[in-house]
Amino acid sequence: MIAVLKHGTTPDQVSHLVGWLKRMNLDVHVSEGQEITVLGLIGDTSRVDMDLLKSLEIVETVKRVSEPFKQANRKFHPKDTIIQIGDVRIGGGYFVMIAGPCSVESEEQIIEVARSVKESGAHILRGGAFKPRTSPYAFQGMKGEGIRLLELAKQETGLPIITEIMNINDLPLFENVDVIQVGARNMQNFDLLKELGKTRVPILLKRGLANTLQELLMSAEYIMSEGNEQVILCERGIRTFETYTRNTLDLSAVSALHELSHLPVVVDPSHATGKAKLVPPMAVAAAASGADGIMIEVHNNPACALCDGAQSLTPAQFDDLNHRVQRVREAIL
Amino acid sequence: MIAVLKHGTTPDQVSHLVGWLKRMNLDVHVSEGQEITVLGLIGDTSRVDMDLLKSLEIVETVKRVSEPFKQANRKFHPKDTIIQIGDVRIGGGYFVMIAGPCSVESEEQIIEVARSVKESGAHILRGGAFKPRTSPYAFQGMKGEGIRLLELAKQETGLPIITEIMNINDLPLFENVDVIQVGARNMQNFDLLKELGKTRVPILLKRGLANTLQELLMSAEYIMSEGNEQVILCERGIRTFETYTRNTLDLSAVSALHELSHLPVVVDPSHATGKAKLVPPMAVAAAASGADGIMIEVHNNPACALCDGAQSLTPAQFDDLNHRVQRVREAIL
Amino acid sequence: MIAVLKHGTTPDQVSHLVGWLKRMNLDVHVSEGQEITVLGLIGDTSRVDMDLLKSLEIVETVKRVSEPFKQANRKFHPKDTIIQIGDVRIGGGYFVMIAGPCSVESEEQIIEVARSVKESGAHILRGGAFKPRTSPYAFQGMKGEGIRLLELAKQETGLPIITEIMNINDLPLFENVDVIQVGARNMQNFDLLKELGKTRVPILLKRGLANTLQELLMSAEYIMSEGNEQVILCERGIRTFETYTRNTLDLSAVSALHELSHLPVVVDPSHATGKAKLVPPMAVAAAASGADGIMIEVHNNPACALCDGAQSLTPAQFDDLNHRVQRVREAIL
Amino acid sequence: MIAVLKHGTTPDQVSHLVGWLKRMNLDVHVSEGQEITVLGLIGDTSRVDMDLLKSLEIVETVKRVSEPFKQANRKFHPKDTIIQIGDVRIGGGYFVMIAGPCSVESEEQIIEVARSVKESGAHILRGGAFKPRTSPYAFQGMKGEGIRLLELAKQETGLPIITEIMNINDLPLFENVDVIQVGARNMQNFDLLKELGKTRVPILLKRGLANTLQELLMSAEYIMSEGNEQVILCERGIRTFETYTRNTLDLSAVSALHELSHLPVVVDPSHATGKAKLVPPMAVAAAASGADGIMIEVHNNPACALCDGAQSLTPAQFDDLNHRVQRVREAIL
Repeated sequence: MIAVLKHGTTPDQVSHLVGWLKRMNLDVHVSEGQEITVLGLIGDTSRVDMDLLKSLEIVETVKRVSEPFKQANRKFHPKDTIIQIGDVRIGGGYFVMIAGPCSVESEEQIIEVARSVKESGAHILRGGAFKPRTSPYAFQGMKGEGIRLLELAKQETGLPIITEIMNINDLPLFENVDVIQVGARNMQNFDLLKELGKTRVPILLKRGLANTLQELLMSAEYIMSEGNEQVILCERGIRTFETYTRNTLDLSAVSALHELSHLPVVVDPSHATGKAKLVPPMAVAAAASGADGIMIEVHNNPACALCDGAQSLTPAQFDDLNHRVQRVREAIL
Repeated sequence: MIAVLKHGTTPDQVSHLVGWLKRMNLDVHVSEGQEITVLGLIGDTSRVDMDLLKSLEIVETVKRVSEPFKQANRKFHPKDTIIQIGDVRIGGGYFVMIAGPCSVESEEQIIEVARSVKESGAHILRGGAFKPRTSPYAFQGMKGEGIRLLELAKQETGLPIITEIMNINDLPLFENVDVIQVGARNMQNFDLLKELGKTRVPILLKRGLANTLQELLMSAEYIMSEGNEQVILCERGIRTFETYTRNTLDLSAVSALHELSHLPVVVDPSHATGKAKLVPPMAVAAAASGADGIMIEVHNNPACALCDGAQSLTPAQFDDLNHRVQRVREAIL
Repeated sequence: MIAVLKHGTTPDQVSHLVGWLKRMNLDVHVSEGQEITVLGLIGDTSRVDMDLLKSLEIVETVKRVSEPFKQANRKFHPKDTIIQIGDVRIGGGYFVMIAGPCSVESEEQIIEVARSVKESGAHILRGGAFKPRTSPYAFQGMKGEGIRLLELAKQETGLPIITEIMNINDLPLFENVDVIQVGARNMQNFDLLKELGKTRVPILLKRGLANTLQELLMSAEYIMSEGNEQVILCERGIRTFETYTRNTLDLSAVSALHELSHLPVVVDPSHATGKAKLVPPMAVAAAASGADGIMIEVHNNPACALCDGAQSLTPAQFDDLNHRVQRVREAIL
Repeated sequence: MIAVLKHGTTPDQVSHLVGWLKRMNLDVHVSEGQEITVLGLIGDTSRVDMDLLKSLEIVETVKRVSEPFKQANRKFHPKDTIIQIGDVRIGGGYFVMIAGPCSVESEEQIIEVARSVKESGAHILRGGAFKPRTSPYAFQGMKGEGIRLLELAKQETGLPIITEIMNINDLPLFENVDVIQVGARNMQNFDLLKELGKTRVPILLKRGLANTLQELLMSAEYIMSEGNEQVILCERGIRTFETYTRNTLDLSAVSALHELSHLPVVVDPSHATGKAKLVPPMAVAAAASGADGIMIEVHNNPACALCDGAQSLTPAQFDDLNHRVQRVREAIL
């Protein structure tokens, strides 16, 4: 970490600051120029509060030279992490299609969707049991019963299952869940992350709507620092001024995260765009950008002719998309 | 709620959609024009998933005519809510200054700050015991011991205390806390909100970094719908492209929230700007904009000469600011 | 256009508003419900100031049913526009690679780059002669001399050339330029757009850093409404809170613009990401998303070993990228 | 300027880079640590392209120690600039109210509004003659005739006038205009700025919707570097994700700009909020934050009962607001 001090800082102020930094067990290397003084901080700077340091009157600027994340950092772990989920692998060249309905609604629904996406080549079944909803009056999901139905669909098809947790006290219900999802709104629910770090279940961690890539990696670090190294990162769109799409899918996050970290990166174009028509081109683009997996909403309700335009694809559309994704993956090898 | 259907929608599609809406217990009033068909939905539309409706192929656009929040809505509760906190009131013309250190660090520190801000006219003491930190390696607060020290400062000075909760399982520790704060990162931690809704303690709810005013009010609604009507809203800056300030303080939120809701609105200029120099002008501007309270970071560590430039004010600066805030409040009466 | 009036609007106010709208040559269809009154405005609503209408006290909400752009609108022009640039075509299945240096620096440089990108399969040569720079003290481009050097490179290689205009008074210098570029900062320089609309030269119009897709199409409309229908839209990243990349490339804009408009859409990953390492994956993703062209910065300065990490690719990197882009384009057919 | 080089940079690479920097007439001070190498660049670094430097492979990070603006910089010009406009002064403790209609519509309208705002205490009359409109089909202003009517109103009332320029070729029409406004969309129309820099007329420069404070000051620098030092900065809201207000008024910009620069700062709450109800509280808050002036839209069309809810205030509302603003200004002295 580098701290540049302002012109006019007195020797007294410098030694005060150096003393304070040394008490944090850092080595401080002072380089005094004519115009400015530069402090090089060596040691475990991940404990230093950059915001505080920056806000000191005598400090011009502070820059980290090393990223504040360690276990998620590719520098200390150059090889891609490969995560095993049942018979499926993700990362390091292994690619997965995750598909299923937004919410689990009934046994019939989830089993039918599960069968159909399996047939089309999906590797993992997704489905929401606990649903984070902006309104307290909206349907909050089938909860425990939803997880039970996902387990049935798993038995029926052999597909591993992924579903979202919102409250650490619900953890016992997730015993047979293969991947636990942390939603965008909980990306910085640090207590939840820490508790999930104590499990040994793979975690799919979604990027928050207003969170930087570094913050996403710091949240992964919360999980990993408790001992659970199986974290899958997920880009699902960020909040911008554009209103045509629900959010703005940041596909450059895929390559950027691969550069910074060894963890697998998955893209969710369904939630990002909020429009079924945009899901296939964005899924194909995600595959081309090097994503390790794609997560797609698929519904299967022939009775509900209305739903065709929603962000969910029909099983037939998913089948077609899956073929195009595979062709693009071959093209970029 | 109004749904405008696309040109070319068939009568069959219309009756399908109307049937689906009626099964949600809504009255549907169909108005067919030459170019478009407009559906008026009457009844409890707070259960309708707007995103789903919007995404249907035949739907051009959907607009809520009534806001989706009810208990927080000024339309149904025209009078300002006044919340009693010990001997202090906030809202409906009652104005409070909330002051204290970012984190509780020691008995000496918190009691000294408490005494000094009380003397300068603060009404409530703030201090962090559980600290949400981006990095798992950073200091996470004194936790239960921090709350105990706040209680000591309360005994010593008579000031009510406010501190942040991050995990509902810690609730028993907050027994003597006068106002429980929900931080920006937990604004949509819906399970936490629901549990706090079951208490009868005033809640200070901070706006999330990327959350709209309507989302903030929906989160207040989560608390209120469980029976706790004592919610104080807090604007603390939103995330934008500007990097000179830590966040961008959205002062128009104060008037906007007062128009939409009867709940008191507090402004936190310390976290929003991240710079001590900007705190006083923004605090004064917040008072001028009609805020019901202002929350200021004040530290008191004569040993730490370094901290003078941080976002915290010294007791002397707070004292001066408090006078200016009072003068501005008189000017706008 | 639909205007929903507030509950409690008096018949007098309604007839006032209807009269005002009719004076704008609109047919107004009034539909009075129990709770709300809906006005359907039929006719040329592109002249109606939505912001003004929305801000009226009695108006709850206003929604356009038809987009405010006409000539750029796919509804009125379902077939893809194909633009001819020398021997090259773009749009409607024709795909172009545009490559060249950020700035024209010397005859040697531009001719060498032109030859090398032509050999690698580029269709159009780009190079900046007038450079929009944040600082008045930074190099502002070779201006007229830069255009002359581009013309030399065109003679030498046969590649059509594209370069940016910043001031309409410079137009005479662009006589032999094949595509005139309007930069992101000038996307809403309406006088410049109108003047370019009077030429018959293809215009590449870049999306502004904070402009919506609809605003981009309205700016295209400014050019088209003056008679120049040859507009190429360009996505080059929008400004968000993320700082890892220079801007956030919004690839969903490609499909969205194709849905809304018949104009060709090009992607510029070099300016969007600002990092050479991210250019190839984003270029490949852009091709997969259905873009009609990609614009890449390529430099060729063997003396400047330093530049290897900049957002520009070397000719060898461009050659490799071009092959991958072609493979991906075949995969998505 | 400080450049931190990456761990592992070879001595050869360092000397290459140092050579390149020295050829830009910079002194380079190299400080090699165990982990990193820091270059201190001394001299006129305003010519250095930070983006290029940052993007070099061997560069970890670059930070400016001195801001890239000079003439607008308070460091080199500590005293507040006071600008004389007719008999009116702005800056350095002099405060102005600027008021008038969005667009000049007729002689009757502009003279009536001018008289009424003068009576209420306004110092300068505003009115749009050239209107930047998103749509080419919307009313574009009365242009030259609009300026003539403003001149009439000036003769009639003695109020200096301010109006927006969009095209440098229109400059001759602005001969009798007291302050020329550059709108948000033209903040980075550098050629326009340079030409205005050659005049000696005060320029009101509005912040672009997605521009940082530093970029605003760099645009002021474009004007000042050509010799025109009379620049008034104007905060008018930035584009964020929030949709309740048209834009988000960034009031912390006032203090921040005052810290960075000696130029006067004006706030425009009418365009920022887009809602008449929010204009008075934001105007009062702007005064409290230390703004040197406030710009308010006032209309005066008794025939148009509809317009009462628009972002414009009535003369009576402006009169009331003006009194409150004056009281707040006295309170913060």
